[in-house]
Formats: sequence, structure tokens, C-alpha cells
Amino acid sequence: MSRIDGRTPEQLRPVTIERSWSKHAEGSVLVSFGDTRVLCTASFSEGVPRWRKGSGEGWVTAEYAMLPRATNTRGDRESVRGKIGGRTHEISRLIGRSLRAVIDYKALGENTIVLDCDVLQADGGTRTAAITGAYVALADAIAWAHAKKLLKPSRQPLTGTVAAVSVGIVDGVPLLDLAYEEDVRAETDMNVVCTGDGRFVEVQGTAEGEPFARAELNGLLDLASGGCAELATIQRAALAEAE
Amino acid sequence: MSRIDGRTPEQLRPVTIERSWSKHAEGSVLVSFGDTRVLCTASFSEGVPRWRKGSGEGWVTAEYAMLPRATNTRGDRESVRGKIGGRTHEISRLIGRSLRAVIDYKALGENTIVLDCDVLQADGGTRTAAITGAYVALADAIAWAHAKKLLKPSRQPLTGTVAAVSVGIVDGVPLLDLAYEEDVRAETDMNVVCTGDGRFVEVQGTAEGEPFARAELNGLLDLASGGCAELATIQRAALAEAE
Amino acid sequence: MSRIDGRTPEQLRPVTIERSWSKHAEGSVLVSFGDTRVLCTASFSEGVPRWRKGSGEGWVTAEYAMLPRATNTRGDRESVRGKIGGRTHEISRLIGRSLRAVIDYKALGENTIVLDCDVLQADGGTRTAAITGAYVALADAIAWAHAKKLLKPSRQPLTGTVAAVSVGIVDGVPLLDLAYEEDVRAETDMNVVCTGDGRFVEVQGTAEGEPFARAELNGLLDLASGGCAELATIQRAALAEAE
Amino acid sequence: MSRIDGRTPEQLRPVTIERSWSKHAEGSVLVSFGDTRVLCTASFSEGVPRWRKGSGEGWVTAEYAMLPRATNTRGDRESVRGKIGGRTHEISRLIGRSLRAVIDYKALGENTIVLDCDVLQADGGTRTAAITGAYVALADAIAWAHAKKLLKPSRQPLTGTVAAVSVGIVDGVPLLDLAYEEDVRAETDMNVVCTGDGRFVEVQGTAEGEPFARAELNGLLDLASGGCAELATIQRAALAEAE
Amino acid sequence: MSRIDGRTPEQLRPVTIERSWSKHAEGSVLVSFGDTRVLCTASFSEGVPRWRKGSGEGWVTAEYAMLPRATNTRGDRESVRGKIGGRTHEISRLIGRSLRAVIDYKALGENTIVLDCDVLQADGGTRTAAITGAYVALADAIAWAHAKKLLKPSRQPLTGTVAAVSVGIVDGVPLLDLAYEEDVRAETDMNVVCTGDGRFVEVQGTAEGEPFARAELNGLLDLASGGCAELATIQRAALAEAE
Amino acid sequence: MSRIDGRTPEQLRPVTIERSWSKHAEGSVLVSFGDTRVLCTASFSEGVPRWRKGSGEGWVTAEYAMLPRATNTRGDRESVRGKIGGRTHEISRLIGRSLRAVIDYKALGENTIVLDCDVLQADGGTRTAAITGAYVALADAIAWAHAKKLLKPSRQPLTGTVAAVSVGIVDGVPLLDLAYEEDVRAETDMNVVCTGDGRFVEVQGTAEGEPFARAELNGLLDLASGGCAELATIQRAALAEAE
Repeated sequence: MSRIDGRTPEQLRPVTIERSWSKHAEGSVLVSFGDTRVLCTASFSEGVPRWRKGSGEGWVTAEYAMLPRATNTRGDRESVRGKIGGRTHEISRLIGRSLRAVIDYKALGENTIVLDCDVLQADGGTRTAAITGAYVALADAIAWAHAKKLLKPSRQPLTGTVAAVSVGIVDGVPLLDLAYEEDVRAETDMNVVCTGDGRFVEVQGTAEGEPFARAELNGLLDLASGGCAELATIQRAALAEAE
Repeated sequence: MSRIDGRTPEQLRPVTIERSWSKHAEGSVLVSFGDTRVLCTASFSEGVPRWRKGSGEGWVTAEYAMLPRATNTRGDRESVRGKIGGRTHEISRLIGRSLRAVIDYKALGENTIVLDCDVLQADGGTRTAAITGAYVALADAIAWAHAKKLLKPSRQPLTGTVAAVSVGIVDGVPLLDLAYEEDVRAETDMNVVCTGDGRFVEVQGTAEGEPFARAELNGLLDLASGGCAELATIQRAALAEAE
Repeated sequence: MSRIDGRTPEQLRPVTIERSWSKHAEGSVLVSFGDTRVLCTASFSEGVPRWRKGSGEGWVTAEYAMLPRATNTRGDRESVRGKIGGRTHEISRLIGRSLRAVIDYKALGENTIVLDCDVLQADGGTRTAAITGAYVALADAIAWAHAKKLLKPSRQPLTGTVAAVSVGIVDGVPLLDLAYEEDVRAETDMNVVCTGDGRFVEVQGTAEGEPFARAELNGLLDLASGGCAELATIQRAALAEAE
Repeated sequence: MSRIDGRTPEQLRPVTIERSWSKHAEGSVLVSFGDTRVLCTASFSEGVPRWRKGSGEGWVTAEYAMLPRATNTRGDRESVRGKIGGRTHEISRLIGRSLRAVIDYKALGENTIVLDCDVLQADGGTRTAAITGAYVALADAIAWAHAKKLLKPSRQPLTGTVAAVSVGIVDGVPLLDLAYEEDVRAETDMNVVCTGDGRFVEVQGTAEGEPFARAELNGLLDLASGGCAELATIQRAALAEAE
Repeated sequence: MSRIDGRTPEQLRPVTIERSWSKHAEGSVLVSFGDTRVLCTASFSEGVPRWRKGSGEGWVTAEYAMLPRATNTRGDRESVRGKIGGRTHEISRLIGRSLRAVIDYKALGENTIVLDCDVLQADGGTRTAAITGAYVALADAIAWAHAKKLLKPSRQPLTGTVAAVSVGIVDGVPLLDLAYEEDVRAETDMNVVCTGDGRFVEVQGTAEGEPFARAELNGLLDLASGGCAELATIQRAALAEAE
Repeated sequence: MSRIDGRTPEQLRPVTIERSWSKHAEGSVLVSFGDTRVLCTASFSEGVPRWRKGSGEGWVTAEYAMLPRATNTRGDRESVRGKIGGRTHEISRLIGRSLRAVIDYKALGENTIVLDCDVLQADGGTRTAAITGAYVALADAIAWAHAKKLLKPSRQPLTGTVAAVSVGIVDGVPLLDLAYEEDVRAETDMNVVCTGDGRFVEVQGTAEGEPFARAELNGLLDLASGGCAELATIQRAALAEAE
């Protein structure tokens, strides 16, 4: 059985990571997972939020948003509605936690990095593309800060790499990296965030229809681990290129 | 090694489920997991939100909140700040999804049930206590609606039972049902929602410190499955009592 | 003529005051006036709001809210609507003023006490129950602060006691402590806050139907004074018990 | 002892009522109580809010606000802060209730009148001036509607007249119609709303310093009744003039 | 062809400028352009917004608003809706920019002047009346500050005068100072802000119907320059009177 | 004298218009004016806002926003702050008006087109780039609707073309299409919106420093007219390409 776009169940969509997309940000990446396109910028600033002042430690946070017409039907702007929806909050928090998992706050010193992940076009997996791209933007911003002598030369705030992928069960078959049409049909949907050494940072599985059994969960985790490893390789290759 | 309150690693805190706590709501439960106390009310109303009208199907949703002094330090009221925080949004959505997993919308007909889960006292595991208690309030509201002939006598909107528990790794040891002090020290924190027949509705694991390996994840899932099974027994016993 | 619940016109509903209801707050009381149940917590914190810094004086304030299903029909959450309604504002301000009437700011020193009054179940008289219960929580928080040496041993910030009760005219008869069904039928509705020595802190009377004559007003004030005196006795008894 | 502006304790400030101040509104009054100046407009519109449709009854409501520099020190605009303060809410509700006390909803038919009371200059007693002026604007709007045949000719929605005044105890002396400087020094502050036949619509007394005794309350009510009677005469005179 | 109110195309409506309208503000003007009436107050305060501290320079800003019944049909209050509309924002910014064009920040020192322009009655041209009146209130506030020795005696923060007028093309004829009924029928609508020496501070022209040609634009600019010169004369006369 | 980027005073920056940038929107254009890059999407939907129902006429509106790191320093998200700033409001309204100037509402029928203009990278002239790009997206959406038979074949809702450009005086020299660094140094700043036949839709000139004389205004208008004509040619060329 082949998928809607001809992929095998354990195949990622074409993934591209375009660095230095924006001239202003300290790190900026246009990441695409198939037709999903997310602009990830990393903004480095000296100083930390008030509650962290004097700690000698830095902070990393993230904000996720979708352009109103990133989706098939236009959505209202959250700025116009005057409040942020639950989904946006949830994903922003997930991205922030995922990136903080590979940060050594002491090595970062009292500096803050904000990751903005704006979905320009959505076709499923926007949060996983955002995490995967934001990691590269984060790495670039840290390299920039090193070059500018804003970090101690001997200290590396990054303790590893991080990437994310979605998996799900569609018509009883576990699939890697769901496109939107697969996502809406999935009985179970899981987002998995892994470090480059294959450990887990986040596992979020949800039964959309039938509850899932332990064996199904195990199958999905296998699939996701493989996908994340592949993404780590793609991240490494992107960062190896001259900017 | 024994825990802060003398429990073994795989032991739940004392769990109590007090039904019909409030005179107004169609279902109302004061649930406690140790010192965590959540008031769960189920409000049954005829009709559904606009986007669902004419579908013949019902809707179940949830709202979670904490009283300002449910916690050790007083928190600002979200109504006073004028917006709902990300954590509140996230938990409200989790509770709603968890309960919808055991609802047959067609059998519910065009009726809506809102679950309000207000934390009166917090000591870790408020969202899992909320789900576990809200299920019982939901069952009571459905029984009420059956008694009032608001549902077809032959149709049962509940397709199963649902309960939730937290697990985490503290000092390298996997523990069931974390109290607050354990929760803040946990390296990994996971909330698991299961149906009464042992399948998964939600699995949300987060590395707070070190990323976690697959073996650790497996250990936590074992622990959580056991805890949820125990909670299902407690729910059944509570519902078996005359109201 | 006897009332809906068999009381005489000048009779209070059964009043209970359960102290130390919550493990976190410095003072916490679950107060009930019949089926009206309000959880009142007093949060003591060192320091005062900015506009009072350096004055050597403390501050006491209050916030009132209702759980969505405290009432017969579920109400929207003010946090979800993103703003606080006029009624909530009005009652919060009333409770704060009432308690400040028995506070010596200098004796309190630069400390703040916040009273949170959350209505768990409403059956009329929620604001008067809140004031009556909040006074006891306030007294407990002050005793706690004395025990913790956060107040000068020789200084007593409480200058008296305060309690409140509603009165109203139903079918031409003045009644004490209206239950919800009486309240909706009342032609005139009055909330009276008194100190333990029988003086007035607040008098708020409103004609819901016909305007009221001076003689009627006098009758209501007599009734309210008697009710407040009784409540003061109940408060004293509650505080006399070992916690 | 004479007062700051030379009045006797039981004397009102000069009161003026200028009708038809605005060319657009169905009723519009610029009322002044000494230096307090409030623009009251009555907007008549056919139809009622949704919750009242089909009842055959009308609705009257009010909104109160202060211009930012109506006061001695500039206040922030509530529109800029994005929320209405408790004091504004409270006064808007008081004005609405006061005017509804003299309205026969059935005679009004399914029409709505909104009273806007905007304080152009504040010097104490803004809410009582607002009620007193708004009554005249309301009467003009009703006359306008009668003239336009929007009301049944034989039906008079106004069942009486209404006016309001403040009273307070300053240095132990009960004073009528407090100016701002008196208001801030008052130990007790009371706003009283009366109908033209001398009955009470609202009585709101607050101890700002010491609680007040029953005898003091009685003295204040006497003073307020006299003041309201005088205001009713002034209202009648204003309405007797050709517009 | 004569206009709705009998004016010639190049004629202003009757303009009046009433100074010291309010007893509290440092400068206050009730300005009218025909039936358009705007209350402009200037509030002088020592200190500047945070971003300007230590610069030695002052700040001038403005806020514009309409009373709900300033217009023919009652509009919702922006404070009640909880947000400021685009039109209000736009006009507030225009007024602020216009007045800052004649301010020497250094001569003002670290002081702030806020201009509040509240439309009491609207009949077209509210923003141009507001600018014209606010200039006079600003001049009065600066004179007040000089008298109070809050400004250096030798320094004059005002570098010129500023006034504004609307122009538009109605039925092919360019008209000065449009009344509301003309404004709604205008094909092109332009607001022009000039200094007393005839130069431009703002030119905002909008085609409401057909785009306009360069020749039409030139005609409108001629008309507006003439109108502004006339307004400058009226401002000068108003300021020449003893307050 | 040559400009910062080597241009002559009357030279546009390199302008590119990339059509069909997004797979979801009915029209989508990535427009760049030098380093300013704006994503413009046109969303076509059947039906109109409530106030226009039954009129037989369509509606066109626009929303403008900036990504937080489109600028040199990261700005707060308006969705997070919970309100839209004045500048955003102003520009959204300008874009909407500009495009409506070339729309025949009757020919559009009861359909709505929303233009979203999101600035991905800002370097001056974002609003003029947005208008210029949005026109092309609008034209594509209308062509799409014609192809889908959602518009009457014989009716063309577009009555012309529209483009916009900024001009300003820097160091006394009038310049076309200001880059950000020029913009901040400009004494006068003007945005001009023209139709393809050389008439004006909007003229918005602001003195940032010194007021400007009529001769300067004339010079700027000449420059802008030339720039808009050039942009109209570029738009035509873009639309002539096969999509």
C-alpha cells in the first residue's frame, strides 16, 4: 500500500532547511517538510527576564503562529481576536521546552534567545517542522554570539541536537511524518521530539478515534525514532554548509 | 527506598470520590488524590454549539481552573489578568479530549455536557485527578439525563470508562502518582490517560532534565497502566454506591 | 406565615464556619449560610502594593468569584470571557472595604492580606456569607503572622469584628437572610455589614420593584442588626475552637 | 460652622439643568451640581436586547464614564487600558437601576433607552448629578417618542420622578451634597436615590473611617430626603420650560 | 451654487474657541466648527515616558475619542468593547504628530503634555477641529508652566502655530470645511494640517469614489491653505484675549 | 549625490513579484521592494459581512501585520499583547481603501475577498510594497473566481490597477522609494497610491521634522507619480506571465 503522495509508511517527506533566510535575525531558517513551510528566526538579546536576573543563567523561549491563510481555509488572526488560542499556546510551549532540553543555561550566561516559528504554509506537521528548523536557527544564533564574543569562547550552550516528527495510525497502518490529509484521517496521532543521540524529549500521543494498545504505541515509537535520526542527519548537513 | 509520604514507588495516594457534592449540577464530584482536591461538575444542556447544529450529534467539553490560593503561593486570577494562560488552556483541552474518547456522539444526541474542573487544593496531579473525577461526574450527568428522558432509553453515550495518572522518574526511580514535591524534582514527567480496558487515550511525556531512554519510557508506561487500572476500580466502586 | 424552608422571618439559615479548610493558605474558611457555600482564603504576604511603599502601613484587599456551576444554570467563566463583570467587581470591592473597616493599617505594618472568596455553591447571600467567613480567615491569618513573628507582638491589626447579612421585603414581610428563591421575589433587597459592637460599615438597599418608605427601611435595619449580632456570636465561637 | 464654599450643612450646591444640549440625542441634559458637570444623553431605539425579545416590554440601561481630565489629575482612559474599572461598572449599574425604578416596561413597549452619563468636570457627587440629570434626559426622550408616535399615546412609561444626592459626616457634622474636598474628608459617605414622592430607590452608605451608629444613619437619611425633594422641584421646573 | 448651510465653497463654518472651559486642566478649550464641538484639554506633568528619560527632552501626545451619542446614531463605547478602533487610533496619532510639529522638545525639558480631544457633538471635521483647538489648549498649558516656573523663562517650546481643516470634492466642486452631510457625499476627502506660516505638516487625501487627478489635488490644496490661514487668525485672536 | 545603495533619487529598488507563492490561497504573491519582502494572499469567499447582506454587492478588506523579527530588533507579537497597535490598524485600513478604489462591488456580487499582507522582512516601504503586491494577488483571486464560475462571465470587478510608492525628502533632496535608513532620516515622508491611469487614490504626507512648502510637496508628487507608473508596468508584466 502506498501513501497519498506515493511515500512508503516509514518515509519522510522531502525536507529542506534554508539558512540565513532573513537579513535581520541572528539565526533564520525556512524549513519545509513537503508543503509545510515554517519560517524560524532566532533573536539573541543580552539580558534575561526579570525572574531570572542575577542567576548567571540564560533563557530560551519560543512563539509559534500561523499566517491566516497558511491553511486551506482562512483563519482569523489571533491579534485581531485579541487572544491567543489554546492550540497556539500549547505548541509554543512545546517548542520552547524542546529546545531548552539541549541548552546549558550556565554556558549561555545571562542572555535570551527567542525562537519565532511562523507557519507560512501548512500541510500537517507544522510543530515538528518548527522544532526541527528552530534548532538550526538556534545553533546559528549561538554561533553568531560566539563570533561577536557575547559568549565565553570556551563555553558551548548547546548540549546536543533536537528534532521532531509526527507519526500516526491511518487505516490501521503506522505512518511516519503525516501530511494534512493523513493527519485528519489518523486514528492515533503522536508527536515525538528526540535528541540526536536517540533519546526522548517529548512524547505526545493522542487517540483521535479508538484508544490505542501498547503494541501500537511501541510501533509508533519505533517509527518516530527512525524519523528523528534521519532529521538529525539533515540538520547536521545543513549546518555543515557554509552559510 | 520509601517516598516522602511513605508510599512505595508503585502506590497511589489515597483516592476519594465524593459524588453529588453540589446541589445544582447534573453531576458533581469532589475528587481527591492525597492533598489534591478538585471539584468536578458536569452541566448537561440541550442543544449544541452552532458548528454542530443539525448533525444529530452531541458535544462534550471541559474547562479547568485553579483557585488562586489552591497552591502554596497565591497566583493571580486569570479573570483579573484578562486572559487564560497556556497551562490552563492545555489542561482544559486534555480533559475534554480524554472524556470525548469514551463518548458516542450519536447516542448523546444534540446535547452538550460541560465539565468544569476547579482545583480547590493542589498537591501535584491536578489534571489527572480532574480527568478521573470528571469521568464520574459525566457518568452521573448521563444517568440524570436518562432518568429525565432527555436521552433515548436504549442508547448509552458512554462507550467505556477513563482515568488518568501521572508517573515520573525521581532520582532515577520511576514513581506512580507524583505529589507536588516529587513532581518538581522529577527528571521526567508523564501523564497517561487510559480506558478501563487498559488502552491509551493520551500519553504525554516530557523530559524536565535529561532526555529519557526508551527503556525508561517503557517502565513508566507499565507503572501508569497499573495505576489507571486501580483508578478504574475506584471509579466503579464510587458509581456502584447509591448516590 | 412561615418561609420556604420553614424559618421565621427573623431567623438565619443554619450557619457553619469550618476553619483551616485548605492546607496552603494562612487562613482558610469554608462558610455556609444554608446551601450557600463560600471558600474564603486569606493570603498573607510581606510587602505592600507600590503606591503604599514606605508608608509603614499595610493593605487588605479581596477578590470574589463564582465557580461556573455554583448556580442553577451554568455561567460563563470570566477568565474565558476575558473580563470581569460589574457584579463581581462590585462585590469584591464591598468585601475589601468591609474588612478594611476593622483593620489598623499601622499595626499591620507593610504587609498585605488578600482575601479570596470563591463561591462553591450559591443559594442567595453569597456576598454576606463571604464577608462573614472572610473575617474569620483574616483573623486566622493575623494569628498565623503573630505566631511567625511577622507582626509586632504588642500590635493587633484587628480593631473589631465584622459580619454581614441580607434582608429584604417579600410579599410585604421583612425577612432576614434571604435564600435565592426569596431574593428573586423580594421587592426590596438590602445588604448590611456591621461590626461586632453593632455599628454599620455598609448599608446597601435597593428597591427591586416598588420604592420603599422610611418605615420599611427602619424595619429592615432592625432585622439586619439582629442578624449581624447573631453572626458575630457564631464567629466568636468558631474562633474560640482550637484550630 | 460654615462649609468650604460657605454653604450651610443642609444646603445643596447651585444646581443647573440645561436641556437639549446636543443636537443628535433624543434627550440631552448638561447638569451641574456646583463644579460637577455631567452630560447626560438619552438614546431611544426601537427593539430590545435579545434576551427580552417577544416580551412586549422595553429596557432602560445606563453607561457612566469620566473624561480623562475631568479630575484634578489626569486618569487613564478605560478604552486605552482595555477594561472598565470596578468603580465605573458600579456607578453605571446604579444609574441604570435608579432610572428603571420609575419605568413601566410594558408602557415602554419593545423599545430601548440608553442613558450615557459622561462626566466633563468632577467635583464630588458625579453619580448623583448623573442620576438627577439622566432622569430629565429620559423624560425628554420619552416625550420625543410620544411626539413621533413611537409609543402608544395613552401609555406613560414614566411612573414617577427620580433624583439622587450624596450626604456624609465630616468632622462629626452631617452635610448635604458633598463637594470633592469634603468627600475625601468624610468619615461616612452615603448616596441616596429617592422618587419624587419621597420614597427610597437606593441607599448606599459606607463607613470610610469609623463605623457609624444608627442615630448617625438616621440623621443622614433625613438630610438626603430633604435634598432629593429639592432636586425633584428643580427637575420639575426644568421640564416645565419650553425646550 | 450654495451649500447645504448657505456657505460659499471656500467658506469656513462659524468657528469658536472657548478657553479655560475646565477648572482642572492646565489648558482647556471647547472648540466648535459649526455643530462640531470638541473639548480639548492639555495636561502638563513633570517627567517623561520611560524610553525618553535622561534625554533632557519632553514629550507631547494626544488621545481622541467620541462620546457615544456625539453622532446621529449611538455608537458603542470603546471602553466597553475593550478595544480601540482603527479610526480612533489613526486620529489620535494624527493629532499628536501635528502638535509635535511645532514643539521644541529641548525647550520643553523633561515634561509631558497630553492633549485629550473628546468630541461632544460631531458634524464632520472632528479631527481638524480637535487639532485646531488642541493647539490653543497646548499654548495655554505652556503659558501655565512658564507662570509656574516649570519651564526655563528664556525657552519657548512652541516653535509656531498649527491648525487643520478638511476639504473635499462634492458633485465636482471643491469645498472647504465639510459638514457631515457633505462629507458622506464627497468623492474625495482631504485633511490638511498647516503651520501659521503656511507650510504643511500633514496632507491626507483619500478618493472615496473616483480617483482624483493632479489638478483636483492642486485645487484642494489651495482651498485648504486658505482655510488654515483663516484658522490661524482665529487662534491668534482667541489667545490674545485675557483668559 | 548617490544614495546609500547607489540608486539615483528617482530610482526604484529592484522590484520582484512572485505569483502563486502559496498553494492554498486563491491569489498569493511574494513581493519585494529591495530587502522589503511581503507575502500577500487573497482569500475569496462566497457571502459578505452581515451589514452588506442582500445588497447584491461584494466586499474587499485587508489585514497587515509584521512578523516579530521582520525588523532589526524583535518586536512583540500583537496577538501576545492582546491588541493591535495604531500603526497596524492604520496600514490595514490604507491597504483596504486602496484596493477598494479599483473594485466594482456590483460586479463582484455578494462575495468577499480578504487581502492578508504579512511582512516577512522589513526595510522601509512595507505598506507600499503590500499594496502593490496585494493588487496582483487580488487580480489572481478574481481570475480564479471567474474560472470557477463564481462570478458572472461578463462582469469584471476590477475597474483598474493600483500601486503605491513612498517618497521623501532626505538632506533636502526628494527621493523615490525610501529604504529604511533613508526613511528614518527623512524630513518629510509621503506615501502615494495611484491607479494605472495616473490618478491618485491616496496621498499621505507627513512632516517628520520641518514642515514642508508647497513646492516641495509638488516635487514629491511628481516623483511618486513616476514611480507608480513604473510599478504599474511591473504589475502588468507579472500578470502577463503564465502562472
